[in-house]
Amino acid sequence: MKVLFIGDIVGSIGRETLQSYLPRLKRKYSPDAVIVNGENAAAGRGITKAIYQDILYMGVDVVTMGNHTWDQKEIFDFIDEADFLIRPANFSVDAPGRGMVTIEKNGVKLSVINLHGRVFLPPHDDPFWLADELIAEAKEKSPLVFVDFHAEATSEKIAMGWHLDGRASAVVGTHTHVQTADARILPGGTAYISDVGMTGPYDEILGMNKESVLYRFKTNLPVRFEVPKQGRGVLSGFYTELDDASGKAVSFERIYINEDYPFAP
Amino acid sequence: MKVLFIGDIVGSIGRETLQSYLPRLKRKYSPDAVIVNGENAAAGRGITKAIYQDILYMGVDVVTMGNHTWDQKEIFDFIDEADFLIRPANFSVDAPGRGMVTIEKNGVKLSVINLHGRVFLPPHDDPFWLADELIAEAKEKSPLVFVDFHAEATSEKIAMGWHLDGRASAVVGTHTHVQTADARILPGGTAYISDVGMTGPYDEILGMNKESVLYRFKTNLPVRFEVPKQGRGVLSGFYTELDDASGKAVSFERIYINEDYPFAP
Amino acid sequence: MKVLFIGDIVGSIGRETLQSYLPRLKRKYSPDAVIVNGENAAAGRGITKAIYQDILYMGVDVVTMGNHTWDQKEIFDFIDEADFLIRPANFSVDAPGRGMVTIEKNGVKLSVINLHGRVFLPPHDDPFWLADELIAEAKEKSPLVFVDFHAEATSEKIAMGWHLDGRASAVVGTHTHVQTADARILPGGTAYISDVGMTGPYDEILGMNKESVLYRFKTNLPVRFEVPKQGRGVLSGFYTELDDASGKAVSFERIYINEDYPFAP
Amino acid sequence: MKVLFIGDIVGSIGRETLQSYLPRLKRKYSPDAVIVNGENAAAGRGITKAIYQDILYMGVDVVTMGNHTWDQKEIFDFIDEADFLIRPANFSVDAPGRGMVTIEKNGVKLSVINLHGRVFLPPHDDPFWLADELIAEAKEKSPLVFVDFHAEATSEKIAMGWHLDGRASAVVGTHTHVQTADARILPGGTAYISDVGMTGPYDEILGMNKESVLYRFKTNLPVRFEVPKQGRGVLSGFYTELDDASGKAVSFERIYINEDYPFAP
Ligand SMILES: [Fe+2]
Ligand SMILES: [Fe+2]
Ligand SMILES: [Fe+2]
Ligand SMILES: [Fe+2]
Ligand SMILES: [Fe+2]
Ligand SMILES: [Fe+2]
Ligand SMILES: [Fe+2]
Ligand SMILES: [Fe+2]
Repeated sequence: MKVLFIGDIVGSIGRETLQSYLPRLKRKYSPDAVIVNGENAAAGRGITKAIYQDILYMGVDVVTMGNHTWDQKEIFDFIDEADFLIRPANFSVDAPGRGMVTIEKNGVKLSVINLHGRVFLPPHDDPFWLADELIAEAKEKSPLVFVDFHAEATSEKIAMGWHLDGRASAVVGTHTHVQTADARILPGGTAYISDVGMTGPYDEILGMNKESVLYRFKTNLPVRFEVPKQGRGVLSGFYTELDDASGKAVSFERIYINEDYPFAP
Repeated sequence: MKVLFIGDIVGSIGRETLQSYLPRLKRKYSPDAVIVNGENAAAGRGITKAIYQDILYMGVDVVTMGNHTWDQKEIFDFIDEADFLIRPANFSVDAPGRGMVTIEKNGVKLSVINLHGRVFLPPHDDPFWLADELIAEAKEKSPLVFVDFHAEATSEKIAMGWHLDGRASAVVGTHTHVQTADARILPGGTAYISDVGMTGPYDEILGMNKESVLYRFKTNLPVRFEVPKQGRGVLSGFYTELDDASGKAVSFERIYINEDYPFAP
Repeated sequence: MKVLFIGDIVGSIGRETLQSYLPRLKRKYSPDAVIVNGENAAAGRGITKAIYQDILYMGVDVVTMGNHTWDQKEIFDFIDEADFLIRPANFSVDAPGRGMVTIEKNGVKLSVINLHGRVFLPPHDDPFWLADELIAEAKEKSPLVFVDFHAEATSEKIAMGWHLDGRASAVVGTHTHVQTADARILPGGTAYISDVGMTGPYDEILGMNKESVLYRFKTNLPVRFEVPKQGRGVLSGFYTELDDASGKAVSFERIYINEDYPFAP
Repeated sequence: MKVLFIGDIVGSIGRETLQSYLPRLKRKYSPDAVIVNGENAAAGRGITKAIYQDILYMGVDVVTMGNHTWDQKEIFDFIDEADFLIRPANFSVDAPGRGMVTIEKNGVKLSVINLHGRVFLPPHDDPFWLADELIAEAKEKSPLVFVDFHAEATSEKIAMGWHLDGRASAVVGTHTHVQTADARILPGGTAYISDVGMTGPYDEILGMNKESVLYRFKTNLPVRFEVPKQGRGVLSGFYTELDDASGKAVSFERIYINEDYPFAP
């Protein structure tokens, strides 16, 4: 199975960049499944039902989330009915939604798991222990398991990669909004990248208006970060081909598209 | 002026990897100046006088540091005499050492500045304000200014890039030990990368024994992290060519060498 | 000079509790100066011009602030004209307002300084270094100097107490909203308490609706904390008498008033 | 049942202060059970077997711990055999030791639970959820349940107090090393204090040499904190009488003894 993952969609520029490149990426990689992290899709903060449906309509199979999951209040109204929207599985047991979904494409099943890190972040449940549980549950359906680990610290992400090496088909990091260059297939057969990066404004700071962010850093005074609606975009993604029988990754490609790194068909 | 920067040297594998590739990198890039971050050179924790001299002897011009600056007690004995060793400039005014050095190569002067981030890190002095001061001071000597910003958060690093765009020749991040894929020349002419990554063990976690780090994540029990002395190495670097008259970057190259990404002469 | 300090006023219950007890406290202690921390006076978040004037009108001489200084946007409009409102002095040099004020009562001058801690808090400027500067400046006017150190960690607060022992007349902590029992006069003559505590709802959590706070702790889900408008109040304060000639504290009293610890005239 | 709790014993001054006052406190309060937090008993860092036995020998029934549990390596050798030593129950399931013990005194059973906070602290398991579990388990043996919640943030401690109000007999905080003045019996019958404070050097910072701690705050340079072996001591404790039938607290007394607050027989 060929899987295409696109990192955090930020605001309207992010959605437009996705819409613009997804057809070309599909042509280039012929993915069987497309997964998108949508935690910043609604103006940088969470996701709405309309945007979720829009993203699915573009040809996306699963949407993952992160620390911004609950930013839009309406998420509480539709998350339990959104069959292809998952949020970090190690959120509170009282939280609505779920953290794993299994899809079937061309007769092959793929489970997608979303987990949240804890270094420099709130004290969610233990993602390492829960990963073991979920992987075991997923393996009963199919050997193909894709993990989006939404975390800040490189140590925690690489640790998760080694923790799941040979058990997950792929472990990709999200959250820092900057793509890392360390994509590889670990010795046990797990495709890994510390962070896929984000899809949104190219000339800002993590997708947020750079003047505002700089003002905050320079003054510690309150300022609201907004996602600009105009400007150049960047798309960050990760492609991997998995062996259907073993669930192991056989190849991968880092995808980073902007004016400095133009798309090559 | 051509400048080669090599990211955090971790332990003996890091020093050996540096020694092994530096001649080949010099052949390939003909750098006028070589800068190395050495904060983890001594078994992952700080630097000794012998290792500092060793690194200079390999053909390195300036060694920068970071949060591990003081890990080896002997640093207090030699830092004030180490003319080409700088530590983050925004450390306490009472701290020994200094945070900027100006070198001259082939008749051209280059100032190197080391700064430390504050997000998820101790409350050092304001690096944005101090950067303004130091850049102004450096500009009196030469338009060529290279900044190693040792920081955790992508937001703070990108903010520093934009803050110094058009004023610094290059702003490179260090500390996360994972190279980012976002190298570019910002609109004002500043070469930028969020993190250069580290030079050391390839199959561990940030250079530290992966079993120990995983044990810590899974149990929260105390365990001492060690840098393995055997295993495959990785070298992470950043090359940039600067215009001597304007101080602006004219080209750059991301350097990431390991068995998955072999060195191309 | 006799000084009465009242800890963080939280919401309308806090303001009403202040109004109810201040006359009685004045009768009991005959303070020459009254200082109140007002960072939570406006529904728990910052202060408005009307509330500031209201507090002064009750017979308060100086209002200090903390991390909530900027919560009400209108603060930016009046802080520079509010002669008796100070905010932490170690905020950014670009921030409006100031961090020290000197008042004169019955022919005796008292300087009040507001500082902010950095442990578990944003990276403001160094409060220890700035305290030295401000104390020296204040001493040119009068030996009487009162410091409100708004900080979280007991280590940082006690450190500030020892740092200023013999130089400040009093160092009182605020921010945790819980009064500590360690009030004392340090060997050098500085009255000290780690935290004065808050003035507001007695049966909630730091003055915020306890159901909301508990929900957050139990679920990590988003919830807005509100200050209840009804319920029993608590008043937390600290009284100290200073020697006008030396500026040293000669006596102190911890003030903690609620139904469990009723006011004794 | 009458219960006497003594806060964090710090180093030899702490142990000597305990030894000096415990007989007098026993005479004054006639406690049926004595509980001591011993996480700093061994020179400020953890506890040794000899010190643990020494403390029991002084007439202590249960020793609780905190974040310093594992500081002394030998703890791993004896914790599983130390029947009256408990460490935070929400440590990893892989950690040795246990977090609850039930003792019987004069025919009445009392369960003692140790929990660890997570605000500003490592991501241990959820203490609120685990508290529910343990309280239920304890209630099968006896209605008397005493909780030592080792935590930093006042919000989290007060939240635990309200969370267990009416279910635990007493919830006392430890860890900040500074006693709070907010001792009370909550409406449901639970005796509560945000922090009991520590037992150790009176003229230092949290029991650690004040010059070292101040040096760290002023320079951010490395320095080893030591517990002085000479100097005045402070004892911090909390006494409460519980109703054997209902398990509810009927009275309490805050205990704070030092030269400023001398012991009253
Ligand atoms: Fe995120
Ligand atoms: Fe994101
Ligand atoms: Fe490093
Ligand atoms: Fe570092
Ligand atoms: Fe407050
Ligand atoms: Fe505050
Ligand atoms: Fe302690
Ligand atoms: Fe502790």
